Amino acid sequence: MSALVEELTPYLVQTRRTLHRHPELGWCEFRTTALVAAELQRLGYRVRLGRAAVSPEHRLGVPTAAELAAAAADAAAGGVAAEVLAAMTGGLTGVIADLDSGRPGPTLAFRVDIDALPIAEATDPDHRPAAAGFASTVPGRMHACGHDGHTAIGLGLAHTLRELLPVLCGRVRLIFQPGEEGGRAALAMVAAGACQGVDDLICIHLGLDVPWGTVVAGSVGFLATSKLVATFRGRASHAGFRPEEGRSAILAAAHATLGIHGLSQHSGGVTRANVGVIRGGVASNIVAGDCVLELETRSDRQEIQDELEARARRVLAAAADLTGCRVNIAVDGRAVAEDSHPGLAAEVAAVARDLPGVEKVEPSRAFGASEDATDLMRAVHAGGGRAVYTILGTTLAAGHHNERFDFDERVLPLGVSLLTEVARRRLGYAGA
Amino acid sequence: MSALVEELTPYLVQTRRTLHRHPELGWCEFRTTALVAAELQRLGYRVRLGRAAVSPEHRLGVPTAAELAAAAADAAAGGVAAEVLAAMTGGLTGVIADLDSGRPGPTLAFRVDIDALPIAEATDPDHRPAAAGFASTVPGRMHACGHDGHTAIGLGLAHTLRELLPVLCGRVRLIFQPGEEGGRAALAMVAAGACQGVDDLICIHLGLDVPWGTVVAGSVGFLATSKLVATFRGRASHAGFRPEEGRSAILAAAHATLGIHGLSQHSGGVTRANVGVIRGGVASNIVAGDCVLELETRSDRQEIQDELEARARRVLAAAADLTGCRVNIAVDGRAVAEDSHPGLAAEVAAVARDLPGVEKVEPSRAFGASEDATDLMRAVHAGGGRAVYTILGTTLAAGHHNERFDFDERVLPLGVSLLTEVARRRLGYAGA
Amino acid sequence: MSALVEELTPYLVQTRRTLHRHPELGWCEFRTTALVAAELQRLGYRVRLGRAAVSPEHRLGVPTAAELAAAAADAAAGGVAAEVLAAMTGGLTGVIADLDSGRPGPTLAFRVDIDALPIAEATDPDHRPAAAGFASTVPGRMHACGHDGHTAIGLGLAHTLRELLPVLCGRVRLIFQPGEEGGRAALAMVAAGACQGVDDLICIHLGLDVPWGTVVAGSVGFLATSKLVATFRGRASHAGFRPEEGRSAILAAAHATLGIHGLSQHSGGVTRANVGVIRGGVASNIVAGDCVLELETRSDRQEIQDELEARARRVLAAAADLTGCRVNIAVDGRAVAEDSHPGLAAEVAAVARDLPGVEKVEPSRAFGASEDATDLMRAVHAGGGRAVYTILGTTLAAGHHNERFDFDERVLPLGVSLLTEVARRRLGYAGA
Amino acid sequence: MSALVEELTPYLVQTRRTLHRHPELGWCEFRTTALVAAELQRLGYRVRLGRAAVSPEHRLGVPTAAELAAAAADAAAGGVAAEVLAAMTGGLTGVIADLDSGRPGPTLAFRVDIDALPIAEATDPDHRPAAAGFASTVPGRMHACGHDGHTAIGLGLAHTLRELLPVLCGRVRLIFQPGEEGGRAALAMVAAGACQGVDDLICIHLGLDVPWGTVVAGSVGFLATSKLVATFRGRASHAGFRPEEGRSAILAAAHATLGIHGLSQHSGGVTRANVGVIRGGVASNIVAGDCVLELETRSDRQEIQDELEARARRVLAAAADLTGCRVNIAVDGRAVAEDSHPGLAAEVAAVARDLPGVEKVEPSRAFGASEDATDLMRAVHAGGGRAVYTILGTTLAAGHHNERFDFDERVLPLGVSLLTEVARRRLGYAGA
Repeated sequence: MSALVEELTPYLVQTRRTLHRHPELGWCEFRTTALVAAELQRLGYRVRLGRAAVSPEHRLGVPTAAELAAAAADAAAGGVAAEVLAAMTGGLTGVIADLDSGRPGPTLAFRVDIDALPIAEATDPDHRPAAAGFASTVPGRMHACGHDGHTAIGLGLAHTLRELLPVLCGRVRLIFQPGEEGGRAALAMVAAGACQGVDDLICIHLGLDVPWGTVVAGSVGFLATSKLVATFRGRASHAGFRPEEGRSAILAAAHATLGIHGLSQHSGGVTRANVGVIRGGVASNIVAGDCVLELETRSDRQEIQDELEARARRVLAAAADLTGCRVNIAVDGRAVAEDSHPGLAAEVAAVARDLPGVEKVEPSRAFGASEDATDLMRAVHAGGGRAVYTILGTTLAAGHHNERFDFDERVLPLGVSLLTEVARRRLGYAGA
Repeated sequence: MSALVEELTPYLVQTRRTLHRHPELGWCEFRTTALVAAELQRLGYRVRLGRAAVSPEHRLGVPTAAELAAAAADAAAGGVAAEVLAAMTGGLTGVIADLDSGRPGPTLAFRVDIDALPIAEATDPDHRPAAAGFASTVPGRMHACGHDGHTAIGLGLAHTLRELLPVLCGRVRLIFQPGEEGGRAALAMVAAGACQGVDDLICIHLGLDVPWGTVVAGSVGFLATSKLVATFRGRASHAGFRPEEGRSAILAAAHATLGIHGLSQHSGGVTRANVGVIRGGVASNIVAGDCVLELETRSDRQEIQDELEARARRVLAAAADLTGCRVNIAVDGRAVAEDSHPGLAAEVAAVARDLPGVEKVEPSRAFGASEDATDLMRAVHAGGGRAVYTILGTTLAAGHHNERFDFDERVLPLGVSLLTEVARRRLGYAGA
Repeated sequence: MSALVEELTPYLVQTRRTLHRHPELGWCEFRTTALVAAELQRLGYRVRLGRAAVSPEHRLGVPTAAELAAAAADAAAGGVAAEVLAAMTGGLTGVIADLDSGRPGPTLAFRVDIDALPIAEATDPDHRPAAAGFASTVPGRMHACGHDGHTAIGLGLAHTLRELLPVLCGRVRLIFQPGEEGGRAALAMVAAGACQGVDDLICIHLGLDVPWGTVVAGSVGFLATSKLVATFRGRASHAGFRPEEGRSAILAAAHATLGIHGLSQHSGGVTRANVGVIRGGVASNIVAGDCVLELETRSDRQEIQDELEARARRVLAAAADLTGCRVNIAVDGRAVAEDSHPGLAAEVAAVARDLPGVEKVEPSRAFGASEDATDLMRAVHAGGGRAVYTILGTTLAAGHHNERFDFDERVLPLGVSLLTEVARRRLGYAGA
Repeated sequence: MSALVEELTPYLVQTRRTLHRHPELGWCEFRTTALVAAELQRLGYRVRLGRAAVSPEHRLGVPTAAELAAAAADAAAGGVAAEVLAAMTGGLTGVIADLDSGRPGPTLAFRVDIDALPIAEATDPDHRPAAAGFASTVPGRMHACGHDGHTAIGLGLAHTLRELLPVLCGRVRLIFQPGEEGGRAALAMVAAGACQGVDDLICIHLGLDVPWGTVVAGSVGFLATSKLVATFRGRASHAGFRPEEGRSAILAAAHATLGIHGLSQHSGGVTRANVGVIRGGVASNIVAGDCVLELETRSDRQEIQDELEARARRVLAAAADLTGCRVNIAVDGRAVAEDSHPGLAAEVAAVARDLPGVEKVEPSRAFGASEDATDLMRAVHAGGGRAVYTILGTTLAAGHHNERFDFDERVLPLGVSLLTEVARRRLGYAGA
C-alpha cells in the first residue's frame, strides 16, 4: 500500500461508517449523493447531478412520491442543502464525475453503487457495527451488501487520482450509481451518457464469497434478469353474502405463483423464477379485489431470459383470465448477461498480482446472480470499449443481505490501491 | 313518530355524522366509546367501561400494541380525556349501560355495534357524505356498514328510555359493542357479563338489502364462522444464488389458497370459504421466508362449520408440509349460528306493524352471513331469555362495505321509535 | 295389489333379473332395447326404434365406434337379431311405444330409463344378486341404480295397460330412455318427438333414500347440470433433454382442476363443481402433450348453472393459456332444473294414498341431484302439458352407484300398481 | 468398412426393419429376445435367458400380468416357440451372450438396448418406414428411439466377433438389455451377473443430436433420475348428492403436480422434474377416489437428485394430506450419474478416428439426460473395470420419441465396424 493510500485509510473507514449509519434505498440516496458530490466538487472534479446523471424516464422501480418526499425530508433534516436537494427532485440521485488530465489519452471509468436495503440491522453487541457505534440509525434500512464500502472506495479513489493527475494522460470518470438493488438504475445512467466516450470501465464489488486476499479480475456468468410487478384487479365482494360477485385477485395471484414457479427448466442454461412478494386483500370476509406480486426471472443466456419473461407474462395474464381478473404488469428492474472483457481482465489481474496483500488472483469466475453493472458494461462494449467486473475478496461476518452483514474494512485501502494502480498503468504517460 | 323522537331527530343525524367523520377500527373505538360513555353518564345511566365491559383474554383479533397506541394518540388529539383513555388501555373499548326503574320487572337489553372498516371512503361529490361534509377524515377508514347509524340509534334510545323511565318497570341495558367486523368482541362482552340477567335482547342492523319501510323482526339463518390467521414460515434465500436453500412461504400460501377455495361444497347446508388477505416476502429476488393468510369459513349449520374449519386447518398444515414450511394458525374472530327467538320476534313484529312509516313487516328472514351478535343471543337463550336480531330497512347508496356506502337517515328516528315502543310495551307497568 | 299385478309379479322379478345379468352402458343398450321392443310388439304396441326414437345429432356422450361395435357384437352373440341391431346402428337405442284406445282423450306418457353403469358388481355371497345367481355377467358393468327395475316396471305396465285398454280413452305412451347416466339422451328423444302430443308425463325412479312404503309424488329441486369434456393439447418433449420445448397438458389440467373446484360458492342457490376424470400423458420422462378432463357443474337454479358453466369454460381456456396449451371443450351430458307439476303431483299423490302397501305419501321432495328426465318434463310443460317425477320408496342394500346396490323387489308390483291406477283414473271413460 | 461388414449390411438393415415392424415395450420384448437368442445360439454363443439374464426381484416398472400375458400371446402368434416363452415367463426378457476365445485375456462387453415406446408411428408416405413398408404393425407402439438399430448392430457384432474369434484372446460378452426406457432393467441385469468379470464395457446409442460422421467416444454428464408412481386414494362419492363425503384423489394429484413442477431450481447443477402421466376417476359426477401420477426427477449430481426425489416424495405426501387422501409411492425406474471412463474413451476415440466415414470424433460430450446404462457402467467401475457410453452420430428424420423418428441406416455398418475394430485392438493377440 502506498503512503498515499495509507494516509487515506482513516478517511475511508470513517466515510464508510458515516454512510453505514445513514442507509438510503434506491432513488432515495439524497444524503449519500450530496456527500459524494460535495467531496468530488471540493477535489475539483466536474460533477454531474440530476438529469445530467440519470435519465428520469429510463428509471425503473421508482418509489412513490410520498416515499421520495419522506426521504428528501430526512435528508434535509440531516443537513443537505435545499439547492442540492432541488437538483435531485423526484429521486434523481447518483453522480457522474470527470477529471481531465488535459493530455490526450483514453477515458478510464470506475463504477460503484451507493444504495442500501430494506433490512433491519442487528442491534446486539456481537454485531460489530452495533458494538462500534456505526450501525444503521434508520429503522428497517441497512447497508447489508457493502455499497457503503464501495462508495468509500470510490471517494478514496477520487483522492488518489487527483494526486496522480500530473502524471496521467486522458480522463478518469467516477460513476456513483443509485438503485443497484433490483436493477433499477444502470440503464438510466447509460441513457444520461455515463458510458459515452468511455474506453475502459471497471466495476467493483467486495465480498461475494471471495475470501480476503483473493481478487477476481473479471466476473462472467451474470444472470440476465427482469423484475416484474404484477397488479391483479378483481372485484371485491362480501365473502359471506355475495361470494359469487367477487373475483378474487388473491386466487389469481395464487395460480400465477404456482405457474411461475413451474417455469424453470431449460436444457440451454441456468434458469430462475421466483415470486418474492405478495400483498392483497383487506379482510378475511371480503373477496380480495386487489393483489400485487413482485417476481423475477433470470438466466445466464439472454435469449432464455427473454423467453422466460415472456412465459411469465403469459402466466400472469392467464391467471387473471382464469379468475375473471385483470392484470397490469410493470418492469421494476432488470439486468443483462454481459461478461467481463478478457483483455481488460488480464490487465487488472496483472496489477492485482503485484499488489501487496493479494495472495490469489482469479482471472474470471462465474457470478451466478444478477447485477445491472452489466448494462453499463454492455454499453461500453457496444461503443468499442472494454469493461470488467472486479471482485475484492474480504472476510464477511455474515452473508450479503443478512442483518448481521459486515466486512473486513482492510478491503477499503486494498480496493483503492488496486484501482489507483490500474489507472496509473493505463493512463500513466511516457513523459511522467 | 312521537314528538319526542321528532325532537331528537337532529341529534340523531348530527351524532351519526360526527361518528361518520371519525371511524375507528375494532378495539380502537376510543373516541366513539368516550362519546357514548359521556352521553350515557350525562343521562344518568350506570356505565361500565374497560374490563367491566369486555373480558381482555376473550378478545380476538386485537391489533398490535403499536396500532392501539396510534389510535389512542389520535383519540387524545381529538380531545378524549386521559382518564377515559386509561380505562380503555390496551383496547378495552365498548360500553355496557344500565338504567333501573326501581320497580320489579324484566331486564330488556339492546345491542348496537360501533366499529368501522379499513376502507377508503369515496371523495367525489356524487357521494353524499363527501358533498355534505361529513365524510371520513381518516385515510383508509370508513363507516361503510352503518354502525355509525346503529350507535346514533343506541344513543337516541338512551334519551327516550330516560324520558320513559317513570312509566317503566324492570331495567334496560344498552350494549355498545366494539369489533363486530370479523366477529372479535361479542364473546368478550358475554364473558364480562353483558348478558347476565337479561330477559330479552334486541340486536339491530340497518340496511342489508331490506328496503325502506320494511322491518325484519327476527333474522334467522346466520352463518357460523371462524376467521383464521395462518402464518407460514419457510426459509429465505437469495433467489438467484441459492434457490435450493429457500423454502417459499408464498408458495405454501398459494397452495393453501387454492386448497381452501376448493372446500366449499356441502349437501347439508350453506358453505363459504375465503382467503381474504395475503402478505408475504420482502423482495422479488428473495425466496420469501414469511407469508400470512387471513381467511374464513362459514356455514349455516354449526357442525358443517366445524368440519369446514377442521378441513381448512388441514389444508394449511399440508400446504406448509408440501413446501417445507411450518405454519401457525390463530383464531381471529368467530360467530355462531343462532336463530332469533320466534316469540320475541312476534312481539317486535307486532310493534313494527303499528309503527307509522313501516309498510311491511317480515317475521323472519335468512341472514345469509355472519354476525357475532349471535354469541350474545346464544348467551341470552342459554340463560333462559329470548333474543332477536331485527333489521331496519333503508335505502342504500351502495352495498355494505363499499366505498360509496350511505343510507337514508330517516331510518334513525324510525329505529329509535321502534325500539322505544318495544320497551314501552314490554316494560310499561299497569300503574302507569 | 290387483290380481292382475299379482299374477304379473313373477314376470316382473324375472325380467328385472334378466336385465340385471346383462347391464349395458348408455347408447349401448342393444340387448335391452331388443328385449323391450319385442315384448311391446308382442303386446300390440306401435313401437318406434332407431331414428324414430332418438335424434342422432342431439345425442351427447356417444361412445366411440369401437365401443359401439363391441357392444353390438355382444348383443348379437346374445341372440339379438341382425335386423333389430341394424335399426340401432351407431347406438340408436331406446324405444317409444304407443297404444291407442281409439277413443278421444288425452295422451298419458310414462318414462323409464334403461342404462347401466361402469361399475364392477360385488361377487361375494353377502350380495344377494350374487347369491341368487342374477349378478352381472359383464365385467365392470352393473345395474347399480335400479334402471333394471324401472325397465321391468315399464314392461309390466305395458301388460296392465294392454289389459285395461277396453276401458280407457285417449292414448298411452311408454318411453324407454337410454343413456340417463350422465344426462345424454333425453334431449335426443325430445327431438325425435317423444313428448309430442303428450298431455301428462310420469317419470319414475325407485330408491333414492325414500324408504319402503313411501311414495314421493312429484320431485322438485333438480340440479341443472352440464357435463364437459375438456381436451388439452400442449406439446410433448423429452423431459430430460428438452424440457423447455414441452408444454405440459397435465400442468394445464392441474391448474384447471384447482380453478374449477374453487368456483362453487353462490348466495342464490346450490352449486356444485367436480372434475371427475383425468387422463393424460404417456410416460414419466415425456412432457405430456395431451390431457383430458371430464367435469360437471350443477345448480338448482338454471341461471346459476349457466353462469357456473361459463366460468368453468373460462377456467379451462385460461388454464390452457397459462401453460401454452390449447383446449377443446365438448358437452357430454346435461339436464335442466324443472320441477314437477303440482297439479299432476296431487293426482299421483291421491292415487298413492289409496294404494295398499303405501304408508306415506310426500307431495314433493327436493331431489338434490340431476336427471335428464327434466328435459322431457320441460318439453311437456312447454307444450302445455303436465309432468311429474315420482319416487317409489324401497329398501336398498347399499346406496346408488355402489357395487353392492340392490333393492327390495316388492317395489316392482307396487310401481306397476301405482302407474296402472293413475292411468285408470286419468283415462278411464265414463262408459266403462 | 471391411468386406465382412459390407457383406453383413443387408442383414443389418433387414434385421433392423424386422424389429421396427414389431416393437415391444419393456419386459414384453418376447419376440425380440427370441430372435436375438436364436441368432446368437446359431452363431455358437453361450446364451443366458430368463433368471440367468435378469434378476426378477430387481426389476422395476414391470407391466401387469394381463399386459405380460397379452404380449406373450402376441409373440406366440408371431411364431415364438412355447419353450422359449416359458423361459421368459413373467417378463424375464433380455439376453446375455458370451463367446470365449479359450485364450487368456480380458473380458470385453458390449451393451445394446432392445425395447420400444408407447408411441403411435406416423403412417403417411412422407415417413420413410411407412413408405418403405417397415413401419410398426402394432398400434400405439413404435421403435422411436433407435433401439431396433442398436439390436441390429449388436447382432451384426455377434457375426463379426464370431469371424474374428481365431485371432482374439479373452472373452466377449453381448448384453441385450430390455426396459431401458424408464430405467427399469439395468440393475436387474447387474444383479443377474451381467457385469461380473467384465474388464471393459462399451454401451452405444445412435443419434442423440450427434450428426452423421461424428462419434462421441465417451459420454459424460448423465442425469441421475428416479421414476416414481404415486397412487392417491381418496374417497369416492356422488358429486351432486354428497360432495362433502368425497375426498378427490384428482385434486390431490393436481396439487402434487403443481408442487413437483415447482421444485426444479438448484445452483449446484442441472435439475428436472416432470409429471408425465396422470390417470384418475371414473365419471364426471363422481368425486374421484383414485388417481395415479407417474413422474420423474433428475439431476447431473447424485446428491441433488437424491434431494429432489426426497422433496418430490414430500410434495406427494403433503398433497394427499391436503385433500384428505392417502398416497402410495413406488419406484418405477432409475438411473445414476456415472461418467464414461476417460482411458477407455480415449481408446474408442483412437479407433473411431481411423475409421472410414468418421469425420469427427469428440472424446466426450455431456449427455444431458438419463440412461440406465449408467448402472452397468457403475458396476463395471466398481469391479475395477472401465466403461464408456459411445454415441454414433447419424441423420435423423425427427427427434427421438417423435412419431416420425427415423435414422440414416448407414450408421448400422458404421457401428459394427467401430465396435469390431475396438474388439480387435483390445483382444487381438500377438500371435495372430
